[in-house]
Amino acid sequence: MSISFSPIGTIHTPFSTLDGMPIQSSGAEDVQGTIILDPQYEEGLLDLDGFSHIILLYHFHRSEGYRLSVTPFLDTVKRGLFSTRAPRRPNSIGLSIVTLVQIDGPTLHVQGVDVLDGTPLLDIKPWVSEFDVRKNSRAGWFDQRRQDSRFTKSDRRFVGDEPKEQP
Amino acid sequence: MSISFSPIGTIHTPFSTLDGMPIQSSGAEDVQGTIILDPQYEEGLLDLDGFSHIILLYHFHRSEGYRLSVTPFLDTVKRGLFSTRAPRRPNSIGLSIVTLVQIDGPTLHVQGVDVLDGTPLLDIKPWVSEFDVRKNSRAGWFDQRRQDSRFTKSDRRFVGDEPKEQP
Repeated sequence: MSISFSPIGTIHTPFSTLDGMPIQSSGAEDVQGTIILDPQYEEGLLDLDGFSHIILLYHFHRSEGYRLSVTPFLDTVKRGLFSTRAPRRPNSIGLSIVTLVQIDGPTLHVQGVDVLDGTPLLDIKPWVSEFDVRKNSRAGWFDQRRQDSRFTKSDRRFVGDEPKEQP
Repeated sequence: MSISFSPIGTIHTPFSTLDGMPIQSSGAEDVQGTIILDPQYEEGLLDLDGFSHIILLYHFHRSEGYRLSVTPFLDTVKRGLFSTRAPRRPNSIGLSIVTLVQIDGPTLHVQGVDVLDGTPLLDIKPWVSEFDVRKNSRAGWFDQRRQDSRFTKSDRRFVGDEPKEQP
């Protein structure tokens, strides 16, 4: 069974290559971007300006194929794909939480973006702490690596033509 | 442009109808469910058991069509669709954060599920507080309604054949 989605807009950022990008929006606090929504969806942005943060769902459009064991940017050993946020996945849907700065018509100015320029946007949802925060969480292998996440940058290991994560 | 995704498994829950469901996983703390991953993806679950919470991305398979202005379960006036978490969206991708209880082979036992039985799963990502929590957030129209969210149940307003949200 196959499910088809169509982009509702495009995310524009300063990142034109996968090399040297922040690996998460929490490590891209100062990075500004714009989202150009297709004008047919503009009405759906009403009331969104009351939210300080929004969830972007998007297509990792430069990620082809996947492996079920990968070495994450933050680690040195292989981990199960679903215990990572690696972009190459069976369904390559990305998720980022960004700061909403301003909305001008169909254009959203955002901050804290960690995605490639030209990324196809699939959905915008409001980020709501009651829905999206959990207390007392454990984060497995990441718990030993958390101090590094704000400073680690991506490299080419998840680029389709150069799968460095495999020997 | 169209992007095709294929389910990687199915989410099983006690909810067979949209009526009376919790509207968010934060209001479904005690609700248990199972995720049956297609066996071909089982290797990707390695290391996931170290995480207490996981993000499920799934297809709102019973939601057809959408309107750009909707009256959310928690409100009495129309809001822009993208400022809500309503299931009927241009790309009907759902997002829930659930508690991971146990993994048995390709089966994940989870708690705090707010989705319909039989929901097609698109992706599993680890929930990591460093990536997914923001401090000092504002939540627009929801800020006046937040005390109700744990107790409000869904009704048929987003059921395809009975679009109650429109006069």
